[in-house]
Amino acid sequence: MAARVSRCFTITTRAYSSKVDKEVAFLGLGNMGGFMAANLVKKGFNVRGYDPSKEAQTAAAKDGVKGTSSIAAAVDGVDVVVSILPSNKVVLDAYLGKDGVVAHAPKGSLLIDSSTVDPNVPKQIFPVALDSGIGFIDAPVSGGVMGAQNATLAFMVGGRKEDFTRSLALLAAMGAKQFHCGDSGAGQVAKLSNNMLMGITGMATAECMNMGIKMGLDPKVLLDVLNNSSARSWSTEVYCPVPGLVPTAPSSRDYEKGFKNELMVKDLELASGMALGIRSPIPLGAVATQIYRVAQSRGYGEKDFSYIYQLLKEDKSKK
Amino acid sequence: MAARVSRCFTITTRAYSSKVDKEVAFLGLGNMGGFMAANLVKKGFNVRGYDPSKEAQTAAAKDGVKGTSSIAAAVDGVDVVVSILPSNKVVLDAYLGKDGVVAHAPKGSLLIDSSTVDPNVPKQIFPVALDSGIGFIDAPVSGGVMGAQNATLAFMVGGRKEDFTRSLALLAAMGAKQFHCGDSGAGQVAKLSNNMLMGITGMATAECMNMGIKMGLDPKVLLDVLNNSSARSWSTEVYCPVPGLVPTAPSSRDYEKGFKNELMVKDLELASGMALGIRSPIPLGAVATQIYRVAQSRGYGEKDFSYIYQLLKEDKSKK
Amino acid sequence: MAARVSRCFTITTRAYSSKVDKEVAFLGLGNMGGFMAANLVKKGFNVRGYDPSKEAQTAAAKDGVKGTSSIAAAVDGVDVVVSILPSNKVVLDAYLGKDGVVAHAPKGSLLIDSSTVDPNVPKQIFPVALDSGIGFIDAPVSGGVMGAQNATLAFMVGGRKEDFTRSLALLAAMGAKQFHCGDSGAGQVAKLSNNMLMGITGMATAECMNMGIKMGLDPKVLLDVLNNSSARSWSTEVYCPVPGLVPTAPSSRDYEKGFKNELMVKDLELASGMALGIRSPIPLGAVATQIYRVAQSRGYGEKDFSYIYQLLKEDKSKK
Amino acid sequence: MAARVSRCFTITTRAYSSKVDKEVAFLGLGNMGGFMAANLVKKGFNVRGYDPSKEAQTAAAKDGVKGTSSIAAAVDGVDVVVSILPSNKVVLDAYLGKDGVVAHAPKGSLLIDSSTVDPNVPKQIFPVALDSGIGFIDAPVSGGVMGAQNATLAFMVGGRKEDFTRSLALLAAMGAKQFHCGDSGAGQVAKLSNNMLMGITGMATAECMNMGIKMGLDPKVLLDVLNNSSARSWSTEVYCPVPGLVPTAPSSRDYEKGFKNELMVKDLELASGMALGIRSPIPLGAVATQIYRVAQSRGYGEKDFSYIYQLLKEDKSKK
Repeated sequence: MAARVSRCFTITTRAYSSKVDKEVAFLGLGNMGGFMAANLVKKGFNVRGYDPSKEAQTAAAKDGVKGTSSIAAAVDGVDVVVSILPSNKVVLDAYLGKDGVVAHAPKGSLLIDSSTVDPNVPKQIFPVALDSGIGFIDAPVSGGVMGAQNATLAFMVGGRKEDFTRSLALLAAMGAKQFHCGDSGAGQVAKLSNNMLMGITGMATAECMNMGIKMGLDPKVLLDVLNNSSARSWSTEVYCPVPGLVPTAPSSRDYEKGFKNELMVKDLELASGMALGIRSPIPLGAVATQIYRVAQSRGYGEKDFSYIYQLLKEDKSKK
Repeated sequence: MAARVSRCFTITTRAYSSKVDKEVAFLGLGNMGGFMAANLVKKGFNVRGYDPSKEAQTAAAKDGVKGTSSIAAAVDGVDVVVSILPSNKVVLDAYLGKDGVVAHAPKGSLLIDSSTVDPNVPKQIFPVALDSGIGFIDAPVSGGVMGAQNATLAFMVGGRKEDFTRSLALLAAMGAKQFHCGDSGAGQVAKLSNNMLMGITGMATAECMNMGIKMGLDPKVLLDVLNNSSARSWSTEVYCPVPGLVPTAPSSRDYEKGFKNELMVKDLELASGMALGIRSPIPLGAVATQIYRVAQSRGYGEKDFSYIYQLLKEDKSKK
Repeated sequence: MAARVSRCFTITTRAYSSKVDKEVAFLGLGNMGGFMAANLVKKGFNVRGYDPSKEAQTAAAKDGVKGTSSIAAAVDGVDVVVSILPSNKVVLDAYLGKDGVVAHAPKGSLLIDSSTVDPNVPKQIFPVALDSGIGFIDAPVSGGVMGAQNATLAFMVGGRKEDFTRSLALLAAMGAKQFHCGDSGAGQVAKLSNNMLMGITGMATAECMNMGIKMGLDPKVLLDVLNNSSARSWSTEVYCPVPGLVPTAPSSRDYEKGFKNELMVKDLELASGMALGIRSPIPLGAVATQIYRVAQSRGYGEKDFSYIYQLLKEDKSKK
Repeated sequence: MAARVSRCFTITTRAYSSKVDKEVAFLGLGNMGGFMAANLVKKGFNVRGYDPSKEAQTAAAKDGVKGTSSIAAAVDGVDVVVSILPSNKVVLDAYLGKDGVVAHAPKGSLLIDSSTVDPNVPKQIFPVALDSGIGFIDAPVSGGVMGAQNATLAFMVGGRKEDFTRSLALLAAMGAKQFHCGDSGAGQVAKLSNNMLMGITGMATAECMNMGIKMGLDPKVLLDVLNNSSARSWSTEVYCPVPGLVPTAPSSRDYEKGFKNELMVKDLELASGMALGIRSPIPLGAVATQIYRVAQSRGYGEKDFSYIYQLLKEDKSKK
């Protein structure tokens, strides 16, 4: 069993407003990071933020996140650093660069990276941080922008058990579930495995719903059957790609404010690269990666990934 | 919403032991049909059975199913005929052949075919039966041999509403859920849509679990994460393809007594043919069909379909 | 070895203007049939044509094809019937319908169907024709509209050897190559096998050319390497999907006047159905079918099938 | 047009036995390298060889290749270094390691790496070599072990034009064709594009031949049709995967002495990684990579890659 927060809280006496970890630096104040930093402020942490975008910093300032002029300035003297950044390269530069986190964070501090990256990225940062007497965990999230806003994110954590335990106060302020998945990098592996499986299942749901509807079934009846049978999944129950069947699903709001297709492609490409590296067969994952990529290249990168249903459904061929 | 039994019972006064439909002929006493016929006997129906295999008839006789020498003899004078047969051809012959059901069943009787076949099969039988004053519904099942044994099958029904309503007494004696999916053939469409989606999701689960485990994750931890995240499905929760994680899943009993790979291949081929006929795109369904087919051709047709995990995992290549 | 015309001519004394077969009915005067009928006229055959479209008949009349008012009128008293029609159903109706070819063609005549259809179609027509003392061969073509115009088509023939031999005079008037592929239906099998292989190889050429070009290679250099190495094929040498490299390829004339994507989809769907029926694994064929189908549904059915290169290349994603 | 040797010889006066480049170091004396080094000796070059395997060095010594005890010793004072090594890591270590080629080769020498690796590998080595006044080209080969033995290899070269020109004397001693594909890394890009296309076309040939044969066609007739139609390719003409049709193809000698499946997998994985890096869609390439990988994991890595035909054909399912 993954060490979930319910159990973990029984083994630690730290509360989420623990005095031990009060001063926090937050790196990356974008769609996700802005809400996450704001939630930390709400729960009583002192948060200094840094983002290369002035607009992002200004927006975060309204939520009580103090602006800083550099990574070095942000992490100076803090207890904990949290980051959520867009790519392998940005994360490596931010942590291991000359002016980066590891060079400037205090001894004894804890670094929490919530970016989704190749598992080799945390595996590179972790030992360097440790050499400087600093803890590092990879803690990618699932739950999307709404999860960030409502503090219902799930964190998948890789790193030392003691660092995971220490992080719980902060993670609980930003999300609802915390899993200790294993050693450094394990959080990324779990995240990528989950998202590849979600991506395939979502596309399969689109295929099979479209097929049944084209054969004349009432969409509601078909979904009801699937949800009560062996084909049910999060994609059929919560995230149905056919508009109007699940009112809270992105498909019911024109595929807006969901998990963007381009982010799904990013995660599938990271997962594909990971699978390639260990020569693990992913016949369906490989096809799904290609087809979501085609959707992005057609110009639908900003839509929720479940928009694939519209692409499968639409037919401009002459009949 | 599909008209599920809970609601349907409110609109009908028939109980499952209704006197109106008491005499039943059961055609096809194999792995599934044997248990289904026995459950009808248990619930008080008088059941005459027919199967070309003498052994099957002898075995059914022990459960109280009276043997007969032909389809004509079996259906003579009955209220209802139930059948579960192996292929399009066998069903068409059994119903529309010279010595078949439609020629010999009484006017006013109801025919229930629980075979999984191409939706065009019921669409051919339905109008012919109607012309003879006989009702016909397609009612394929999900739930497998154990569902048949424990009377927990789900029935997906296509045909007239009044025939569906009339069938409920019998279906409830053999299963736990009944869905009215639409007009004749709609039950088969729902069944094939469901099973293709289950097949893809199951294979995707095998791929992603295998990938995460090869990357070093503890299988239990990974499954726990998936089950609490957006990748959860019936395949992760109930039918996990990795042995030992879900004790009641076929993977935990050496992939025995499950839904055989060769039956999954049959259903995927029927669904692929259906999609081909209406030109509905099924990129993942097409690949999954091919790969389950490869598993069958390697000699694993008798194993549960989740055995695909072992095929993805196993590696005889020199390292 | 397939019995190609070179050898066949050595075993027959019929010339292509043989007096024995002089009177010809031609059914289907569309893009292909119009040119084929005109070529028969040029070589001295007397040709009566029938097409449900008056325009098609009028156009053919200018080339010397006498118009008729029905299939029955067209085939009355002829030596040979040639047809090229759009679908399984149209072919079956035209040949086996009450007012069809078999009912009205003279005893001793020869029927040549050049439509591309499911191999089961000729297998149904052949024995019925034979029972009426009429020969029947399936003779689908490759070479497209330009091959029809220039009489350079290749015919793939299924049926009796004597019927193949007899047909050579006519086939040679319309094309450049004739293969006797086997018994009734074998022509269709060869055609579908060829076109599925062409479709996969063409898409693969588009993928790999696009990849190399994106990596910075000069398109001409890359094509030159491929054409001199183990990746060479008809697709690289004659039909390169990248515009401007092979001046005579459809890609160099905006993908016009080629083998339309929608016809490729039709052939791939026939081949997929054939493979499904015999449970023959086609992992790449299945994926190619789906992706060409997506191109058609995007509205590119009228373009040459090598247009898939443009779809793979184009990228509207934000960078 | 790629600058092929015929034209290139017109722009250079160097002969293959030019005195300028006489002393050669050869690194990697395995299946390929052993024959290549021997061919250099035959053409009059003085060749010193190095391989970590003593057996390989001993075998090469019989062909006149002088053994050395280290890379440094091998490259000391030479005019040219040629290498053919198994992986990205081995190549990078051999060239850029402390005791590697670049550190020990003389100023003014030319380095030729014929390994198949990621294009980023030569792109890393090239500028470092240049800084030391040393030329470097990537020159992967196609043609396999027999091409190496018979000096009929094709070289795909990336790097400076002058280095390509200088290399021709040596390349011509080891092979039959030389292509200058572009700047550093371009040779690898061309090689990987070619091999992915060959891999897909080969598998497609296996699929379509198997399908046609299962439908009853005579294998010879089918191949003859394909070879005379739009589906022809190097795979149908030279490398037919069906045993007995092309006597010189590996399929006709039990799939031995060909291009091993495990090497095809290696090249497809490199190509897949390259495509992933530039986000180039490879729907068929991705599927082919997975399926050849499955063949390797089943234990057929040592067989020629066309063995995939046997896997598609074989059927152990109960009928």
